Amino acid sequence: MKIVVVGGVAGGMSCAARARRLDESAEIVVLERGPHVSFANCGLPYYLSGEITDRAALLVQTPASLHAALNLDVRTGHDVVAMDAIARTVTVATPDGIEQISYDALVLAPGAQAALPPIPGLDSPRLRTLRTVEDALSLRDKVDSGAERAVVLGAGFIGIEAAEALVHQGLHTTIVEFAPHVLPPLEDELAALVTGELRRIGVDVRPGVAATAIESGADEDAVVLADGSRIAADLIVLSVGVRPDTAVFEAAGVACERGAMIVDEHGRTSLLGVYAVGDATVSTDAVTGTRHPVALAGPANRAGRLVADAILRPETARPIPQPIGTAIVRVGDQTVALTGANRASLQAADIDFRTLHLHPGQHAGYFPGASQIHFVVHVRAADGLLLGAQAVGLDGVDKRIDVLATAIRAGWAVDDLIDLDLAYAPPYGSAKDPVNMIGMLGENVLNGTLRLWYAHDLDVVQEDALVLDVRTPVEYASGHVPGAPNIPHTELRARLDEVRAAAAGRPVRVMCQSGVRSAIAHRVLAQAGLDSASMSGGMLTLREVLGDRADDVLITH
Amino acid sequence: MKIVVVGGVAGGMSCAARARRLDESAEIVVLERGPHVSFANCGLPYYLSGEITDRAALLVQTPASLHAALNLDVRTGHDVVAMDAIARTVTVATPDGIEQISYDALVLAPGAQAALPPIPGLDSPRLRTLRTVEDALSLRDKVDSGAERAVVLGAGFIGIEAAEALVHQGLHTTIVEFAPHVLPPLEDELAALVTGELRRIGVDVRPGVAATAIESGADEDAVVLADGSRIAADLIVLSVGVRPDTAVFEAAGVACERGAMIVDEHGRTSLLGVYAVGDATVSTDAVTGTRHPVALAGPANRAGRLVADAILRPETARPIPQPIGTAIVRVGDQTVALTGANRASLQAADIDFRTLHLHPGQHAGYFPGASQIHFVVHVRAADGLLLGAQAVGLDGVDKRIDVLATAIRAGWAVDDLIDLDLAYAPPYGSAKDPVNMIGMLGENVLNGTLRLWYAHDLDVVQEDALVLDVRTPVEYASGHVPGAPNIPHTELRARLDEVRAAAAGRPVRVMCQSGVRSAIAHRVLAQAGLDSASMSGGMLTLREVLGDRADDVLITH
Repeated sequence: MKIVVVGGVAGGMSCAARARRLDESAEIVVLERGPHVSFANCGLPYYLSGEITDRAALLVQTPASLHAALNLDVRTGHDVVAMDAIARTVTVATPDGIEQISYDALVLAPGAQAALPPIPGLDSPRLRTLRTVEDALSLRDKVDSGAERAVVLGAGFIGIEAAEALVHQGLHTTIVEFAPHVLPPLEDELAALVTGELRRIGVDVRPGVAATAIESGADEDAVVLADGSRIAADLIVLSVGVRPDTAVFEAAGVACERGAMIVDEHGRTSLLGVYAVGDATVSTDAVTGTRHPVALAGPANRAGRLVADAILRPETARPIPQPIGTAIVRVGDQTVALTGANRASLQAADIDFRTLHLHPGQHAGYFPGASQIHFVVHVRAADGLLLGAQAVGLDGVDKRIDVLATAIRAGWAVDDLIDLDLAYAPPYGSAKDPVNMIGMLGENVLNGTLRLWYAHDLDVVQEDALVLDVRTPVEYASGHVPGAPNIPHTELRARLDEVRAAAAGRPVRVMCQSGVRSAIAHRVLAQAGLDSASMSGGMLTLREVLGDRADDVLITH
Repeated sequence: MKIVVVGGVAGGMSCAARARRLDESAEIVVLERGPHVSFANCGLPYYLSGEITDRAALLVQTPASLHAALNLDVRTGHDVVAMDAIARTVTVATPDGIEQISYDALVLAPGAQAALPPIPGLDSPRLRTLRTVEDALSLRDKVDSGAERAVVLGAGFIGIEAAEALVHQGLHTTIVEFAPHVLPPLEDELAALVTGELRRIGVDVRPGVAATAIESGADEDAVVLADGSRIAADLIVLSVGVRPDTAVFEAAGVACERGAMIVDEHGRTSLLGVYAVGDATVSTDAVTGTRHPVALAGPANRAGRLVADAILRPETARPIPQPIGTAIVRVGDQTVALTGANRASLQAADIDFRTLHLHPGQHAGYFPGASQIHFVVHVRAADGLLLGAQAVGLDGVDKRIDVLATAIRAGWAVDDLIDLDLAYAPPYGSAKDPVNMIGMLGENVLNGTLRLWYAHDLDVVQEDALVLDVRTPVEYASGHVPGAPNIPHTELRARLDEVRAAAAGRPVRVMCQSGVRSAIAHRVLAQAGLDSASMSGGMLTLREVLGDRADDVLITH
């Protein structure tokens, strides 16, 4: 058995290593276009920032170490330029010329390349991407040699990591995002927190505006934006997305969908003996069923391993799971993580859902260092099936998102979270963990114990309903909705007549700071016969939704 | 509907609060024997240590705040001394004398009291338990007034927290544990790490020895141990376990099992209209099916909520889940957590299982601050069903145990962990998260790709097999098994003849540092026709198993 793997990072190298562990007798050849294999691609922004100090740390394995440990034949500088699935050969441009290499099984893991926006000036010598070790070294050289102003185009995960790295290195850094907010997969209410954190650490954030040109000058570049502004830059990082690097393989007959290779649950392409994994393949989203490439290291690595099984143990190979798109990024002191579907993808898939907002502490409130986690959770309206969750906070975010990702994989409804036995001691959580709280809140919403209204609907609600603020007078004075009277929830039972009078027959829409006290108030009002609902996530979520407009909309006195 | 709740912490207060949220019209009375309700019982050790500085922080709620927010009638200093389930009354000793209180539904949440070992001297004025706010204040007073030497009896969760708190306050602190190692529910190989950490922070750890007497003198106490040693103490903390505080209720006819109240899945006792929750009830372990009380805050709080549902919405109430016993404790800089069954409980339940040991990094190795998590995972031999997991490490332990607790609740087999989409970026994990790694290792063991041998069996294995060390020469010289030759795994393929010669027909039992390289070596050897196996967890686990004996057993040169 001769296995040829095209691409020596993530999925490709996982496949090659697993193949060797399964079969000592196989001939395993890994062809990598670049000079390095198995490098720490997710670590590149942290080398740029200086947090990773040793560039050698980026090279997790070398061809020599892989040969010694796993008897792999790893060839860098080998670029596959053609393939023939009938003859079972690939044509490779090598440092010594063109070569034909035969295979019994071919694994395509070419990954993706940076997507290029349709604007002039991308050939500027001051522009870089951040996808390879060479990119990181080159960017770091520019930083070390005195670059002072940077522009990052694209505020996705890598763009944000790059912007933070550059500001950490002391550069005046601007990040430009065409979409209405940074981290487009994130809900707008949480993205507002990310924008705030980026600004806090000194990044100039420009969301909702396109870059229209890069003008390259002798001493500096200018990034021109659609709003007419020009940003001077010594250094430009382009990270507006990626596209599968599949031209050679599509030309050779591998069936593709919008440029990504189509594979079955064992990574088999349309061509016999040809497998594919990673960023260059189409996945079917586990929640929404939509088909798209997933450019994440985790799924690629795991799929690579499973493809080796499919090649060498086809009868027992485990299928490649459908991804749920769990992802995470550190932004300043905050952690931002998401799993499953977001609002936009659920709407696109025409799935009827309900959204929950919570802001529980990451651990016991009485223990030092308590901080809030800001959650947005979507559940299917019909039965509470968990569809997606996102969170932002200083601590404990990764844990809760991983538990929720596990629950989504298990196919649970939100109320199944009530029963989770999670590890509790004061430094780690609460007796009712935030994940349990999501379950309890979700159950209340599903069975009608709690009725929610949403900060996004404030304008509409204000037209027809009484907005009632049940926080303390001090909280109320720090910013409240115009026209909303203040009756603290502790006084509500005694002041129901006041509420009735103020409502004057209209529905009552309660709000508090985070949604906990307004839920209690809702129960009081509903049982008193009023048409009541509690604002999901309360003032904290309202402020997130309002973003920069909060100071204009809210009244302080 | 009049609901009377006996016990105003954790389960009792959760029940009362939920009952009010469900029903504005109910009369809800909470009877608490002590002076405080809803206090931070899990926070008491951290007040003792000084980490929690404000004693008011321990009082999460007060009768007044609970009345204002939830219209609860909370009565402290009210001790239920009798009950009559036919008349539906409880007899209560109050500050103003004996009172009869009627109920429609009675919820018993009396909790547990400190278990007392059968030794003389427990009446010493220098002895305290650590279960109430008063206990914590009193201990703290002794510390603040100059106590210098403390002895903690019992190295369970609270005992360890207390010992750390006292050593943190500068006391010379000794912890005595009758069981062979600290934290008896923990496997011995992980307990060795806890003992090491306790010693590192300055605690004198005495495992495997009983205290036989406390001798109280004018200036100090002496704690006498079964080995004849005497430890002088200004302060003694007794925490050898708890027992359900149910005498009154058992006398009144509530069916009990070894002192704990028997309840059904809705918290109903044997008496009509009488419910019970928390530490004083029997639970059926979800993994082993054994019946015992679970003295943990999380299950108690969640059960309290569900009992309110059972009382007020019996037709739709969610059943109380069977606990899986997830627990966690911080020890020095380490986190120690466990979920599901341990080795002893699986053996007692006669469940055939396999054990996995792993030591993966908590995040990408190239990212600063990487540290190992030491895992022990048990899976059912027949099908890989996840039965239990424990872990010790500096960081990321709570996250992995929570994910594993979720997977156990989901009824997953270990290989289902392969497919988990967990949040990965370099500060948070690896592309193959430690939990994924557990899945991959478990799958390999289950399908025979990997065969394990265990550090616990070293003595027996050495008699009949060649132990082969495949680490580097430097690692080998730092400590190796007597008689084990060293062939680095990178040289193994070229030196197979040496292995055959050394084995001389015997099986080969490979080991490395953590079990990763020996697994590769096992594959090489097995496919070369040798009877081979890889040591689960490698030298790291062997050192844990050997504990204090490691320096005697292992050879360095």
